[in-house]
Amino acid sequence: MTRREFAAIGAAAIPAAQAQPQEESWRDQGILALERSPGAKLHNVPVRAVTMAEGFWTPRRKVNLERSMPTLLQLLEEHGIVDNFRRLSGRKNVPRRGPLYTDSDLYKWMEAAAFVLQSGEDAGLRKTFDSLIDEILATQDANGYINTYWSGERTAERFTRMDGGHELYCLGHMLQAAIAYYRATGNRRLLDGGIKFVDYLTRDFGPTKRPLLTGHPELELALIELYRITREPRHLDLAGYLLTGDGQRLKLTRQQMVYLFSGRPFTSRTRLEGHAVRAMYACSGATDYYLETGDAQYWKTLNLLWNDMVSGKMYITGGVGSRSEGEAFGEKYELPNARAYTESCAAIGSMVWNWRMLAATGESKYVDAIERALYNGINSGMSLEGTLYNYRNPLERMPDDRVRNPWYDTTCCPPNLERILASLPGYFYSTSREGIYIHLYHASELAWRLEDGARVKVAQKTNYPWDGSVEISMAPATPAEFTLFLRIPEWSRTTKVEVNSRPAPGAVAAGRYFAVQRRWQAGDRVTLAFDMTPRLMTANPRLSDDTGKVAVERGPLVYCLEALDQKGLSSLSEVSLPVGSEAAKGFSAEFRRDFLGGMTVLKHAGRVSAANPANPLYEPLSWKPSRPVELTFIPYYAFANREPTHMIVWVPYSRA
Amino acid sequence: MTRREFAAIGAAAIPAAQAQPQEESWRDQGILALERSPGAKLHNVPVRAVTMAEGFWTPRRKVNLERSMPTLLQLLEEHGIVDNFRRLSGRKNVPRRGPLYTDSDLYKWMEAAAFVLQSGEDAGLRKTFDSLIDEILATQDANGYINTYWSGERTAERFTRMDGGHELYCLGHMLQAAIAYYRATGNRRLLDGGIKFVDYLTRDFGPTKRPLLTGHPELELALIELYRITREPRHLDLAGYLLTGDGQRLKLTRQQMVYLFSGRPFTSRTRLEGHAVRAMYACSGATDYYLETGDAQYWKTLNLLWNDMVSGKMYITGGVGSRSEGEAFGEKYELPNARAYTESCAAIGSMVWNWRMLAATGESKYVDAIERALYNGINSGMSLEGTLYNYRNPLERMPDDRVRNPWYDTTCCPPNLERILASLPGYFYSTSREGIYIHLYHASELAWRLEDGARVKVAQKTNYPWDGSVEISMAPATPAEFTLFLRIPEWSRTTKVEVNSRPAPGAVAAGRYFAVQRRWQAGDRVTLAFDMTPRLMTANPRLSDDTGKVAVERGPLVYCLEALDQKGLSSLSEVSLPVGSEAAKGFSAEFRRDFLGGMTVLKHAGRVSAANPANPLYEPLSWKPSRPVELTFIPYYAFANREPTHMIVWVPYSRA
Repeated sequence: MTRREFAAIGAAAIPAAQAQPQEESWRDQGILALERSPGAKLHNVPVRAVTMAEGFWTPRRKVNLERSMPTLLQLLEEHGIVDNFRRLSGRKNVPRRGPLYTDSDLYKWMEAAAFVLQSGEDAGLRKTFDSLIDEILATQDANGYINTYWSGERTAERFTRMDGGHELYCLGHMLQAAIAYYRATGNRRLLDGGIKFVDYLTRDFGPTKRPLLTGHPELELALIELYRITREPRHLDLAGYLLTGDGQRLKLTRQQMVYLFSGRPFTSRTRLEGHAVRAMYACSGATDYYLETGDAQYWKTLNLLWNDMVSGKMYITGGVGSRSEGEAFGEKYELPNARAYTESCAAIGSMVWNWRMLAATGESKYVDAIERALYNGINSGMSLEGTLYNYRNPLERMPDDRVRNPWYDTTCCPPNLERILASLPGYFYSTSREGIYIHLYHASELAWRLEDGARVKVAQKTNYPWDGSVEISMAPATPAEFTLFLRIPEWSRTTKVEVNSRPAPGAVAAGRYFAVQRRWQAGDRVTLAFDMTPRLMTANPRLSDDTGKVAVERGPLVYCLEALDQKGLSSLSEVSLPVGSEAAKGFSAEFRRDFLGGMTVLKHAGRVSAANPANPLYEPLSWKPSRPVELTFIPYYAFANREPTHMIVWVPYSRA
Repeated sequence: MTRREFAAIGAAAIPAAQAQPQEESWRDQGILALERSPGAKLHNVPVRAVTMAEGFWTPRRKVNLERSMPTLLQLLEEHGIVDNFRRLSGRKNVPRRGPLYTDSDLYKWMEAAAFVLQSGEDAGLRKTFDSLIDEILATQDANGYINTYWSGERTAERFTRMDGGHELYCLGHMLQAAIAYYRATGNRRLLDGGIKFVDYLTRDFGPTKRPLLTGHPELELALIELYRITREPRHLDLAGYLLTGDGQRLKLTRQQMVYLFSGRPFTSRTRLEGHAVRAMYACSGATDYYLETGDAQYWKTLNLLWNDMVSGKMYITGGVGSRSEGEAFGEKYELPNARAYTESCAAIGSMVWNWRMLAATGESKYVDAIERALYNGINSGMSLEGTLYNYRNPLERMPDDRVRNPWYDTTCCPPNLERILASLPGYFYSTSREGIYIHLYHASELAWRLEDGARVKVAQKTNYPWDGSVEISMAPATPAEFTLFLRIPEWSRTTKVEVNSRPAPGAVAAGRYFAVQRRWQAGDRVTLAFDMTPRLMTANPRLSDDTGKVAVERGPLVYCLEALDQKGLSSLSEVSLPVGSEAAKGFSAEFRRDFLGGMTVLKHAGRVSAANPANPLYEPLSWKPSRPVELTFIPYYAFANREPTHMIVWVPYSRA
């Protein structure tokens, strides 16, 4: 079966309600518009279809909208990132500032703003967005090209440094911002500008024309999302060409193709390596390509790479990319703690990749990975006040490691975190032909429709993840037979599911969706009770950095120790956790409303050995005296929000 | 007191026997010629004064002379390193090959050859050396400049890229080769060539002339050793100028001055950082400078840096430099195992620095550091067959990590290892005004003199380090009153010292020299018995990579596990060592003559947990079943001498 035949089958199979593009189809498009994607089992719901109520993410999203986004735009202005456009259009006479990829930072901020608009909020963002479109389009060349670095005096050098030039990377982010804005407003101005650039590429570049390379993968996924709007095969084909890679014609070295995660066929990859963000974006684009083409080689490769990640290259926080050298994946099981690089953007890259893998399969394991990254290694990336950002998210932090900063010259992470928080409602639910999926739990309401077009509302009442109980109210416009798929997190050892106060039939398995198929009617209620017992986690013995240590989890949250919470301790190096065979019983959980934005802290008896700063580096083994200490754990995402202090995720343990 | 006054005091205090340079004083100079160094408490003995008998180092030195040195010279020829000189002198019409610092690789090989000649062996080396001198001097400019990279078409670019150009680095190694050859033969040809280059530098460069920088420290120590021959203050002053650093005039960035460990005053340093080899060579040169000037600021800085190293930046193997990124020191306690960089050259740098610190103080702790590096992290750098070399000496080796290679384009380590092995006899003994020091133990004979000129012989009979007993025979030409200083290694918990079969008076303290002061006469015998009980070592709790793990030592040797010695195991990840409170009793030691060149292997009961390759990366803590396994440890220096296999130094332990 050829790709085209596969696509035709997919198109033929589109349910009636979505088959015809409607006048206002932009309103119905989610983060991904997968309605016609033949490889998609699940389909996104629009961001606007989900209303989030008070809960875990509310203060994070509020601070994002009210503080992070306005202050970051101001910083982008102060650092000349918007002026780089004004300079080129002649509106300002200033020198270009910042690294060559700064355009993308503005585009990512704009994408965040567009997602806010999709949720029906405004806060002046539409006006700002429109004026930014003016600034951007005023710099567009007649042939469609836009990039503030590779213009003016550098125009002749375009497409000559494709390994590091970030021209296509910036275009990719511009397209994503344009698409999100189109889906928010129906306004195509920026989108049409982006299409003009893309059409210049499809005209002049390709396997039989000039060679092209995404030295930083990103355009691939943007092009396929564009294709989902335009249905122009050349947009999909260009993505396919970029994923195949033209590194030989461009004389890329083997080492470059490793680092760039582009240049050679995606389907020739067997392991995650090189620059972690590049790799994650390439995998995301390749999954999009699979969703449209059903190419079995892609699927084989994607599974190989995904297993490589979760079996040895992912931190317990969901972060990926161990090495600061090349911002790269390490070898399998190379997951150092204090030196972890774990760029916020790489964890985000993993989340958006997993979101696509989920769409292709409906398998819960991809949401387990999303939840791990989202609640921990991504959530840690922005300070609780919303004005400091992490580039690195290490699992041990020395007091003098300044992980949180208001600005980075390479400021990719801050707007990336903002667009994730702004788009978050789009990640909670999906639809399939069989019914509705609930992936993540949070007080919220979905007001959308089944794939046969029948209107339905689904509401969650919960204080998840502080509490493990979730109450789901179903409200189809008229009674309807369909399946409600409830994700049972892999960490919930025992889960109770009740429908209208009676145990739901069937076995509830952790790490699977629990399917409740019935004729639903308004007033039906499903209740879930997850096992929120704190868990002591160990790492695979091959992960030698964590030998003899445990990490603490509760629900989806990874916990950590900060020295300043431990009475009388300035360092955690001498701390250990005595654990028995039923260790988790040793925890007490306490919700503290006024502490770090409100959180459940965990307490556990610990021991601290007689710490002598003059201890030699190496000495004969002896059983050192130790004294008891009460240890207080806080969720990892909240680390480094107070004065500098030592933090560890992995705590040495001893058998009590 | 000014530097000059201090130097004058030192000169006045020189014992009669060394006060007047003799016709053949080159014969009497050791690795360092410290006889007139006012800051030196200990003085080197000539390499030729020590004859090494059959023992631990014999096969290593034999393979060095018979295999390593000839094959490396051949490789240097094959890679065009010698031709680079012939090209410049017009003797060959070939392109220049290799990185810009290749001259230094040849010079280091020549220094090794010169040390062989100092020991009275030849093996055709004198003829080879002389012809190499011809090749080198044929390229010397009229102004004295020699460097095959920065000549010909690059002559105009000399001294324009001093951060990375390695011009002075190459000169430093040329001078060291020239000095070693002069001390072997009295032949000054290469030495005079080197002096001509140095005199060009002292004429044209300096604080009030053109600025100069050793972008890779090395010339500093060479210049001071040159000064010890020439007594020309300008040679010492140039070293002082380079150690002070002229980075401001050269507009070096802060970051460059960190990485290069030069450019700003050595005395402004407070921590070891940046490129490890550069830092170690800078410290060595600075100690030499202290030995000549007594500058208290230098001494303060040197102690600060030394403590920084041994308290948190040195591997248990004596290796230093944790990061491959920048080949650099890490933060304190940043000592990863598998990813350890630990360049052979850096461990050698630590050894030569400690040798100078020892000369300044007579303190045993510096020999403890030398012995740790020499027997482990340096000794591992050359394969047992002598034709493969390590650049990195990691403390965990994955089977696919190709640590041993016959050639590196940057082939600094191989000749560096060769010169250490060739010069080794010079490191065993010293003299002071009070008598004779024995630093290291090995079957050998010292035929030299006391500092009052009286002839004396000291012979050691021992199979150290396989055996802990050493028998020392004293043979002064005539009975003489002096002190014999015997190093008691810091690891020997209990040590017996007998003189003529009777317990020596006084307390024997580990980590100190034990002084035996008496009227010695021919036939006097001292016997030592060190505690060779295998030791389970732990790391400081701040060194989190080694939490919950032990390393095994016996005598000066660090041991390791290689998977191929453990029956039925292909990986060591699931192995643990059950230890009790008197754990070391659990070892059995067996000397195996025909195994890996002959060695004592250690056996200990271990456990291996049920290894399941499909184990998840993270899972709830459980007490896994395990089965007993007999673990066989071999000395670390011998790792990776057979087929690829997993190796670990640090082994997880459990309380038995």
